[in-house]
Amino acid sequence: MEIFLDCLPCMLRQALEASRIVTDNTELQEKIIAEAINVIVNYKKYGYSPEMARAVHQVVKKLSGIYDPFKKIKERDIKTAKKVYPSLRDFLQQKRNDLYWALKIAATGNIIDSAINNNVNIEEENGYIEKELKKEFSICDIEIFQNKLKTSKRLLIIGDNAGETVFDRILAERLSDLDIIYSVRSEPIINDATIEDAFASGLNDYAKIISSGCSAPGIILKECSDEFLKAFADSDIIISKGQGNFESLSGIDKEVFFLLKAKCPMISQRLHVNLNEYVFKYQYY
Amino acid sequence: MEIFLDCLPCMLRQALEASRIVTDNTELQEKIIAEAINVIVNYKKYGYSPEMARAVHQVVKKLSGIYDPFKKIKERDIKTAKKVYPSLRDFLQQKRNDLYWALKIAATGNIIDSAINNNVNIEEENGYIEKELKKEFSICDIEIFQNKLKTSKRLLIIGDNAGETVFDRILAERLSDLDIIYSVRSEPIINDATIEDAFASGLNDYAKIISSGCSAPGIILKECSDEFLKAFADSDIIISKGQGNFESLSGIDKEVFFLLKAKCPMISQRLHVNLNEYVFKYQYY
Repeated sequence: MEIFLDCLPCMLRQALEASRIVTDNTELQEKIIAEAINVIVNYKKYGYSPEMARAVHQVVKKLSGIYDPFKKIKERDIKTAKKVYPSLRDFLQQKRNDLYWALKIAATGNIIDSAINNNVNIEEENGYIEKELKKEFSICDIEIFQNKLKTSKRLLIIGDNAGETVFDRILAERLSDLDIIYSVRSEPIINDATIEDAFASGLNDYAKIISSGCSAPGIILKECSDEFLKAFADSDIIISKGQGNFESLSGIDKEVFFLLKAKCPMISQRLHVNLNEYVFKYQYY
Repeated sequence: MEIFLDCLPCMLRQALEASRIVTDNTELQEKIIAEAINVIVNYKKYGYSPEMARAVHQVVKKLSGIYDPFKKIKERDIKTAKKVYPSLRDFLQQKRNDLYWALKIAATGNIIDSAINNNVNIEEENGYIEKELKKEFSICDIEIFQNKLKTSKRLLIIGDNAGETVFDRILAERLSDLDIIYSVRSEPIINDATIEDAFASGLNDYAKIISSGCSAPGIILKECSDEFLKAFADSDIIISKGQGNFESLSGIDKEVFFLLKAKCPMISQRLHVNLNEYVFKYQYY
């Protein structure tokens, strides 16, 4: 998916929010913004929005000297998600169509997204998770998924945000008949999950956790490790979580199930859904 | 009020939205954005956000060759507001505290604001105006205003958006014991009212309409005409409508009543109200 002009003000907003996470020093914030604008003005050199996002957030990391600006936010969100986890399991047990709802739980975890809103503390907003959980998918290609499951052995889940990883555990448990590989970013970028975050979320009980080899908040295949590319090639089913992975994998020559909440107007338009709707969409090759 | 870093992504968004109003040509849109970024990167040279907004929107006007990009939007909003006008009068007649509600009607007109949202078509969103009308002020210095009214003869209303001008007519009618001057922008800028728009709104029945002499979407006093500055100096009461006028007149050495809806997070913070609350606030000198 190409970069839209709409991505530019959004990236600048992200740079500003991230600058405020790393420092209270206004001068440093101004320097970060000035350099972020230099990235944004050259948007045409980036193939995908996640590449530009990486460049913007690298400015924040470089100028602040902080390797993992969202570390505390990630820790907070994993902790909160783990607190919520028992109620997610209870919710699933009450459902007849548990495959649908396991997918929907994993999609709901995608509400945790610092690229969209740093301030969403899922714990503090009373009833927020329950309300989001109950919303059904606007696109749901579960029948194709069920058919594929019959003959599948290997599943690759391409992870997105830290905290969302705990919601994904529910899906991994439900699909535990499969050999599951769960991939994460190669280094800290926004609040995206890294190896450490996936382990802290307990995903290692249900999946082999690997790094994609890519440090962007998406999957740039030409940057990915051999280990990831092997999993990408050999898996019978691929589930791609979230917007960044969608932006970089939609339209490529590969079967992928995209599981996400469409929080960005460009992505919701591309998916032909309304903003903030949930999607489980199959991409044929 | 100073320019905040938060103004930068907002200005870029405005540039993008305006570029799409003036052209469907992606290349031209890209040129507009590139030049708008050049304006934004030099934000320190502007004293107030409305000055930067003018520079950004001048890029749109210059590169598109369109003198009044929001002309159709302004015409639409004036037309819609005139359709609503009889129901605004009815609403006011049913109210005991008609001064409060005349002020509130004028403040409600401030929902029409293309800098914030081009797409608000007040007619199409069913019940939107009624809902906004009923919301009371979060800050309301009406007692000071009432006291001042007792000894006042001359009122200056500093206008904001086209369409909002029709709502202001209700207030001008209610205050028609005073000699009223209503000031507008010296040339088209965003959807702000010009002389033509004020006449089209019927304000000339209740007020003398003058240009401020300033082409920014706010009042930059050093740019204003002698006629405006005289009215500014001689008026017993000044009512300043909307955010742009607030940004350029708050903190100056002058008594002003600010009448607006706080639609921008920076402005609502400055006013110590929540986003989207209504304010009628007295500034002492």
